[in-house]
Amino acid sequence: MGMVGGGLDAFIGAVHRRAAGFDNEIELVCGCFSQSPDKSKATGHALYLPEDRVYSSYEEMILREKELPEGERMDFISIVTPNHMHFPPAKMALENGFHVICDKPMTLNLAEAKELVGIVEKSGLVFGLTHNYTGYPMVKEARDMVRSGKLGKIRKVVVEYPQGWLSKYEEGNDYKQAIWRTDPSKSGAAGCMGDIGTHAENLAEYITGLQIEELCADLTTFVPGRLLDDDGNVLLRFQDGAKGVLHASQISNGEENSLKIYVYGELGGLEWHQMEPNTLKYKTQEGQRLIRPNVGDLSASAKAHWRMPSGHPEGFFEAFANLYRNFAFAVKAHMNGQQPDPVYDFPDVYDGVRGLAFIDTVIASSQDDTTKWTKFKE
Amino acid sequence: MGMVGGGLDAFIGAVHRRAAGFDNEIELVCGCFSQSPDKSKATGHALYLPEDRVYSSYEEMILREKELPEGERMDFISIVTPNHMHFPPAKMALENGFHVICDKPMTLNLAEAKELVGIVEKSGLVFGLTHNYTGYPMVKEARDMVRSGKLGKIRKVVVEYPQGWLSKYEEGNDYKQAIWRTDPSKSGAAGCMGDIGTHAENLAEYITGLQIEELCADLTTFVPGRLLDDDGNVLLRFQDGAKGVLHASQISNGEENSLKIYVYGELGGLEWHQMEPNTLKYKTQEGQRLIRPNVGDLSASAKAHWRMPSGHPEGFFEAFANLYRNFAFAVKAHMNGQQPDPVYDFPDVYDGVRGLAFIDTVIASSQDDTTKWTKFKE
Amino acid sequence: MGMVGGGLDAFIGAVHRRAAGFDNEIELVCGCFSQSPDKSKATGHALYLPEDRVYSSYEEMILREKELPEGERMDFISIVTPNHMHFPPAKMALENGFHVICDKPMTLNLAEAKELVGIVEKSGLVFGLTHNYTGYPMVKEARDMVRSGKLGKIRKVVVEYPQGWLSKYEEGNDYKQAIWRTDPSKSGAAGCMGDIGTHAENLAEYITGLQIEELCADLTTFVPGRLLDDDGNVLLRFQDGAKGVLHASQISNGEENSLKIYVYGELGGLEWHQMEPNTLKYKTQEGQRLIRPNVGDLSASAKAHWRMPSGHPEGFFEAFANLYRNFAFAVKAHMNGQQPDPVYDFPDVYDGVRGLAFIDTVIASSQDDTTKWTKFKE
Amino acid sequence: MGMVGGGLDAFIGAVHRRAAGFDNEIELVCGCFSQSPDKSKATGHALYLPEDRVYSSYEEMILREKELPEGERMDFISIVTPNHMHFPPAKMALENGFHVICDKPMTLNLAEAKELVGIVEKSGLVFGLTHNYTGYPMVKEARDMVRSGKLGKIRKVVVEYPQGWLSKYEEGNDYKQAIWRTDPSKSGAAGCMGDIGTHAENLAEYITGLQIEELCADLTTFVPGRLLDDDGNVLLRFQDGAKGVLHASQISNGEENSLKIYVYGELGGLEWHQMEPNTLKYKTQEGQRLIRPNVGDLSASAKAHWRMPSGHPEGFFEAFANLYRNFAFAVKAHMNGQQPDPVYDFPDVYDGVRGLAFIDTVIASSQDDTTKWTKFKE
Repeated sequence: MGMVGGGLDAFIGAVHRRAAGFDNEIELVCGCFSQSPDKSKATGHALYLPEDRVYSSYEEMILREKELPEGERMDFISIVTPNHMHFPPAKMALENGFHVICDKPMTLNLAEAKELVGIVEKSGLVFGLTHNYTGYPMVKEARDMVRSGKLGKIRKVVVEYPQGWLSKYEEGNDYKQAIWRTDPSKSGAAGCMGDIGTHAENLAEYITGLQIEELCADLTTFVPGRLLDDDGNVLLRFQDGAKGVLHASQISNGEENSLKIYVYGELGGLEWHQMEPNTLKYKTQEGQRLIRPNVGDLSASAKAHWRMPSGHPEGFFEAFANLYRNFAFAVKAHMNGQQPDPVYDFPDVYDGVRGLAFIDTVIASSQDDTTKWTKFKE
Repeated sequence: MGMVGGGLDAFIGAVHRRAAGFDNEIELVCGCFSQSPDKSKATGHALYLPEDRVYSSYEEMILREKELPEGERMDFISIVTPNHMHFPPAKMALENGFHVICDKPMTLNLAEAKELVGIVEKSGLVFGLTHNYTGYPMVKEARDMVRSGKLGKIRKVVVEYPQGWLSKYEEGNDYKQAIWRTDPSKSGAAGCMGDIGTHAENLAEYITGLQIEELCADLTTFVPGRLLDDDGNVLLRFQDGAKGVLHASQISNGEENSLKIYVYGELGGLEWHQMEPNTLKYKTQEGQRLIRPNVGDLSASAKAHWRMPSGHPEGFFEAFANLYRNFAFAVKAHMNGQQPDPVYDFPDVYDGVRGLAFIDTVIASSQDDTTKWTKFKE
Repeated sequence: MGMVGGGLDAFIGAVHRRAAGFDNEIELVCGCFSQSPDKSKATGHALYLPEDRVYSSYEEMILREKELPEGERMDFISIVTPNHMHFPPAKMALENGFHVICDKPMTLNLAEAKELVGIVEKSGLVFGLTHNYTGYPMVKEARDMVRSGKLGKIRKVVVEYPQGWLSKYEEGNDYKQAIWRTDPSKSGAAGCMGDIGTHAENLAEYITGLQIEELCADLTTFVPGRLLDDDGNVLLRFQDGAKGVLHASQISNGEENSLKIYVYGELGGLEWHQMEPNTLKYKTQEGQRLIRPNVGDLSASAKAHWRMPSGHPEGFFEAFANLYRNFAFAVKAHMNGQQPDPVYDFPDVYDGVRGLAFIDTVIASSQDDTTKWTKFKE
Repeated sequence: MGMVGGGLDAFIGAVHRRAAGFDNEIELVCGCFSQSPDKSKATGHALYLPEDRVYSSYEEMILREKELPEGERMDFISIVTPNHMHFPPAKMALENGFHVICDKPMTLNLAEAKELVGIVEKSGLVFGLTHNYTGYPMVKEARDMVRSGKLGKIRKVVVEYPQGWLSKYEEGNDYKQAIWRTDPSKSGAAGCMGDIGTHAENLAEYITGLQIEELCADLTTFVPGRLLDDDGNVLLRFQDGAKGVLHASQISNGEENSLKIYVYGELGGLEWHQMEPNTLKYKTQEGQRLIRPNVGDLSASAKAHWRMPSGHPEGFFEAFANLYRNFAFAVKAHMNGQQPDPVYDFPDVYDGVRGLAFIDTVIASSQDDTTKWTKFKE
């Protein structure tokens, strides 16, 4: 694996590296960790990489690695830069024969996302998108329960993602994470809705298998001076008549990272909280069951994404690692000319398009106070 | 107290009777418990009432009680009939000098509600409305925290009220509670939104002190054959720029009575769940505190609505009893020509108008797919 | 009902009155509320009792009421005095033909308790003991699950009752509840173990149906100057080889009233918390179910002790009221020469003896540092 | 790092490898993974180790690695074999100049443990013991709160560790984890008490800083045919007058891995659950606070053991990784002739002795039904 972005002072780069290394399937062999060659070198040094595998630009990395013999050169790149720097290295890597795993949202805008679909399809290579919350075993179980009909026809979905860390004007405080996430040139057209609203959208579609067809959004920028939305409330209409609510926020004061989803069907309901990820609540009119990893009879998918005996909590890193491992399995299968095993799934380029389309749709809806329902763009 | 409605096979009548009697301030002295004189008599008998205080109609009760000497006759009536039978006895009682406490929604429609305001104001009598969830001590504390500025300016409110008991066509099963609640002639123009959506609306306005100004609603009838909405999702815009989401449902399969509210301001957030009513979560970026009855420093209002040492759970009946006790205090104050103590508050006729206006507004909004924001009617 | 004790400044008297009146089966008709005739009168006045039914002593009450005609006179007495004043009025009431319901621990010591058994048996009258925690519907369900074999043979019981309200020397602060509870002449030989340890003991024996056979106790008085134990840890050995732990405390700083019980058998386990009394956790190696009142298939006993639809929390008062209602049913049955219905059970004089024997046994064990296992006295 | 034990079919070996690699401070360079050379080779192959670094015995590994040049040879060994095979490789490694990190309990018996102290002290090398539950950041915070006096003088400790996985005779089911853990020749004198009771003991002493001075134990073997205890209840007496209860079980049916601890002092109390490890409850008579990683003002120690923004759950692996990282820091410091930074602490050989002494003491106490209090051996 070669990494683009993820210098020492970045947050998400270290997450990706730990996730990639967790199951001993992936080795970091090279990187271009920063636009500053000095920072890139310093990061490579701290990561015990040989100096000649630390590059000054992603272009250099892709071209130089391509010249290395197979087995020695990187097999894929991991892109962990701010959003505006996702598309260029992804495109170049794919066009030079490297698989790609990329942070979300996939690109800066929907046009890039659609273009990337064509590039991926043309390349025949593996493309992964780190909508990491789908990596939790209880999310896998939830999806399986919907698929297997345990909930019956889905009627209602509530997905919420409140955070409070941007309750003040943090971008004025030299707080790097706040600065780029609230800067339209780096983050894209949406703030909160792009950063975490897309996770909520992806999770809802992943678990239910239903696509949002139209929506009605009310986005707000509460903090004076901020350039992008920091809160949004959205009514959802899914395929097949299911209704829903999605709300996400970075100004829900005192909330940490409280992604939750509730799914109700004709036969039963499900509830899952990211901050207590190892419990899936399954409710029917007969009572409530707590579904837990490695307890009782679970789906093959839930089992394949858990490592420990029950009661030994796995968390954010392990879910993230599940995506990397599954991506690595797909890369291996590709190398061996095999089909990947569907139990080891991960979000892909089409999920990425849905995410950018979601961003475009909520912004269009929110800006138009005369139209109630805006069709999901795509 | 004289009761209108609440025969032996009714559900809410017994709740009101227990709530009224709980603090030894109110005695049931007469009633007209059913449209069937036989049922009314049987109920009166079971309640150990003398036969001559059990009436065949509310009209008879009001006229006959009026003739009794003060001190012996009832001081007020409690109306616990289905919604269409709220306004007529309320009007007649007030016009004959009796105070009134009434179940919610206050009337069958907004026109009646507005008329009732005039009648109450003209009478100078006490009118109480049993939006019982405002009777919980931790709801009082939440309101006090908002008022005292602990949360700063309010930015966002999420209030949700999922139930699952109407997930099937229960009104076809000779299930009395389901039958009248889904019958427009008895329940009014809204089903779920009238029955529980109004509780959510009332709770949000009560705690925040902010009124909803406009909204965008998407109501649904999921169960085939049902005549009224059984689910609804609503975007809210409050006074002073606060935004919100309200969703309520009777088809959220497996949910019991899961009213929850989240309020976020510039300085902190609050979370309260009706099913665990004795914990109020107070969150700031410094951490989370669990506020509990009779623990630490609480508002006068919270203290005035709790009876036990901490850790001895009070619940639905005790909150309901708080409303009756406070109403009784106001009636007493009226009798004595005094002002009621504001710490012993209860919902009134103006809350009732807000509820009916909410129903009208969400229905109007939901029926109009071309208008995004519908002004709150009133 | 006539009440002994429970003056206006007492805590538990009002609880008993609310509990007694809750289901409209019991009416307070007279009382001797304090050793001070003035206080007794003031209490009677506040309770709207006629003056001639407020007495200066329990002796006077029993004798004068006995002369009243049946139907007018009280049917039973409720004893809510400090522990040392339980036995005398109970004895006199029974010997004069009145049924008795009494607070716990039943008497000041084991000798009195045993004597009371003889008096009750000789009288043929109904005797109830307010071990109120057995009145919760989920406790009934737990007992039923054990009885019906769902847990298999019981192996282990953990029952804990931490409170923190006596973490300081509150008895020096003119705090009435603290003063008598830490005074051996009023409370008996044990402090914490008598006040709440007996509740824990009773709950464990009630749910499991197993009696403690021997125990090993370590009681402590942590607060300087205190005259009785304020904390205790006990190893338990039950009939049939079950083992257990009981610990109770009044110095567990920050705990409110956190009675919990865990029961494990060969086939499954149960967990119940008094502070969240409407959830019973049922655990097996296949997973965990949350059992809730009025949800799904419950025992007749659980159903008979719940009044509301699911999700409307009942609490301490309702559980307490269940005891009074059941006691009232037994009194009625006695009056009518019928057998009481076993589904409406309540603790009795034999439970009271177990409680006093428990107190004696833990004190004996704790005082003897050379004997490991002390047989349960009785 | 060179590993002893941890073949592909073992459970804990993979845990140690993931934990060791998590923070990019430690690289697995060699191993002897099984007593079977074939299994050892297969494991080494699966881990992408070069063949010449996979050994047939720990003796071979130690001797051969010692001959390699510094920088190439392993710096320390990690011992993850069953208990009876801890001491021999630890001793040989230390005597040959290698640091050691070892699974718990440290040795098969107390005599070995004491001998190991001498060996470690003589060697001057770093010795780590993987009592992994001390690696959680909220456990660090708890210890810091006690140390800094926030709880005042400690009065009571309750530590409990129920599991249910050995509720049946699993050792008869070809279940490897069950077989060796219930075999005295491999597990030592205690079953449940050695496997998890020692974790509970270690956690209690770690957080409180108080040593157990005497105890009274009641161990039981509930499952017929089992050779070691599968349940135990213990009364504790700590230094300075603190009292406590410890109970652990492998037959608490339906429990997963439910280690919990409650600590009460003169000023406040703490509660922590391993299965929800990112919340530390801090209770005083003024109320309850939820302390969470990366929220508000935390100790340096808590901060040093958390990697993510708040609300991104870390779990078992991350806590385990904290031990390995801290051990690696100590090894580095040793190499550099520096003192290790005390904020990066980990359990050591003296904790190991406490664990073995605890096992000996509870067994001695349990076997002697005539002695109430058994002094803690050491």
